[in-house]
Amino acid sequence: MQTATPSLPLSRDSIKQAHAVVAPLVHRTPLLTSETLSSETGNNALLFKAENLNKSGSFKIRGASYSISRLSDEEVARGVCTHSSGNHAAALSLAAKNRGIPCHIVSPRTAPPAKLAAVRAYGANLRLCEPTIEAREAALRQVQEETGAVFVPPYDAVNTMLGQGTIFLEAEEQALEGGWGRLGAIVAPVGGGGMLGGISVAAAGTGVRVFGAEPECANDCARGLAKGERVTDFTPNTIADGLRTPVGLNNFPVIQKNVEKVFTVSEEEIIEAQRLLWERLKTVVEPSGAVPFAVVRSEAFQALKIDGPICVVMSGGNSDLSKAFG
Amino acid sequence: MQTATPSLPLSRDSIKQAHAVVAPLVHRTPLLTSETLSSETGNNALLFKAENLNKSGSFKIRGASYSISRLSDEEVARGVCTHSSGNHAAALSLAAKNRGIPCHIVSPRTAPPAKLAAVRAYGANLRLCEPTIEAREAALRQVQEETGAVFVPPYDAVNTMLGQGTIFLEAEEQALEGGWGRLGAIVAPVGGGGMLGGISVAAAGTGVRVFGAEPECANDCARGLAKGERVTDFTPNTIADGLRTPVGLNNFPVIQKNVEKVFTVSEEEIIEAQRLLWERLKTVVEPSGAVPFAVVRSEAFQALKIDGPICVVMSGGNSDLSKAFG
Repeated sequence: MQTATPSLPLSRDSIKQAHAVVAPLVHRTPLLTSETLSSETGNNALLFKAENLNKSGSFKIRGASYSISRLSDEEVARGVCTHSSGNHAAALSLAAKNRGIPCHIVSPRTAPPAKLAAVRAYGANLRLCEPTIEAREAALRQVQEETGAVFVPPYDAVNTMLGQGTIFLEAEEQALEGGWGRLGAIVAPVGGGGMLGGISVAAAGTGVRVFGAEPECANDCARGLAKGERVTDFTPNTIADGLRTPVGLNNFPVIQKNVEKVFTVSEEEIIEAQRLLWERLKTVVEPSGAVPFAVVRSEAFQALKIDGPICVVMSGGNSDLSKAFG
Repeated sequence: MQTATPSLPLSRDSIKQAHAVVAPLVHRTPLLTSETLSSETGNNALLFKAENLNKSGSFKIRGASYSISRLSDEEVARGVCTHSSGNHAAALSLAAKNRGIPCHIVSPRTAPPAKLAAVRAYGANLRLCEPTIEAREAALRQVQEETGAVFVPPYDAVNTMLGQGTIFLEAEEQALEGGWGRLGAIVAPVGGGGMLGGISVAAAGTGVRVFGAEPECANDCARGLAKGERVTDFTPNTIADGLRTPVGLNNFPVIQKNVEKVFTVSEEEIIEAQRLLWERLKTVVEPSGAVPFAVVRSEAFQALKIDGPICVVMSGGNSDLSKAFG
């Protein structure tokens, strides 16, 4: 498949360059805090990086905006495309709209109506397909043949990691600005691994400990790290819909090298963490975005005895509200 | 009933003095914005004053903290008490805890368990009573006789208005700091009228237009203004549980003098506004806190043609999450 132009080397410096590019295109999302949540959870200040408040409702706007910025003029003219039913679709649609270029999204016809509405609202061309991997890929190939649009992958690309890694640069700055001092650790969700990989590269050499957070019911990354090689034989079955993807080919070795450990949590722990974030932080986080907080609340994580404040990444807020308002 | 010591005159200057007192005790809550919500609603920038993110989950912490600050040393030693099942109970409990004094709360035994848990978590003494006005008042009298605690009323007091009016001072400053310029209007919910009254006093002479927002099903303030006198014969029946109280004796004339108009909205409009705030702003607002946004979305309000940004007060975030997570 066609992908974007060659990328910078995977390094903290490249992520600084990426940040200069995306900073005007995304929100510098706040670090939210709650004395109650921090004191109930342990002895560390918890700094919640609120990517649920980012444009399009998730961190995906960082990678999408950065990926588009790396396109050549010729590529830009052709527009972009992807297949996704979730946050990457909305983010790419908005990033393309901001750049003023065409965007084509292939989504399964079973995708949540609210997510399809967001894609349409951002002006992207939406093509619905049957809910199978084969149908998605066939539909995407057809879009590419018809339009020449450049495929922007959701996670399995160096540019994606460089874009998502900008989260770390902001968090370490904001922790200092807010008077919390140097971060002791950062905990981020891992689905495809674009964000966790990027954060781990940005943190390399800083002394900040980097941890992944994954549902037990989609634990391919944790299992892959234990086995020493990427695991692909798994059937994800978790409420955390953003984390059902396998870790990407490009992302896995980066995580292997730079992430101290990936912790897993149960569905019950995810739901309880999500409810606490809604109730105490008054912030709408989707299940995937609550997985790191569920990890931080676990005994296994508490046993680590982190020294310093902990940045907990809330990756997105595009939660299904039909139950609350149905 | 015993009340706190004499208060300053009701004026913008007094509210500035109150702000100096409460600023270290409460959050300077942010002005949240959404380009989508603003552009879908009309031609004005909407600046959502996020009092749902304030300590104890609502603006009530302002009035409670300020009321306690006005107690004499002798009164402080006796502690404070109130009857409430809602945000004032939690706010007074926290403000008393911060001051290190006893707090006694009388609540109907039918109050939501989550709200009672918050009161207990803040260390207040909780006394449950039957869910009638008579039982509440009798229980409160008994608490006062037993403990000598000073009654801090939830809304019907000058000190309460002075405390809640600080919302306006912050909003007008933040609008300038954020580059939005001078406010064109501010819209606040009206239940007992402590917040709307205080805001209207703080705004007097500034040229900022002040509007109230009330459920149709608890429209005593709007009816009172139309009639030219306070209305007390009403049976509130609205999802906006914070706005079921009648406008206070002290508050009504202040609102009558300083508020341009009180708009009413239907239950459906309130729920739709609440859902939009959760979905787009990713912020958990309780029904009462969504009433001003429901007003701003109405045709009647849009016909006003406000000149400048509109501050929309989201008063609290202590929403019942049992439906979303039940």
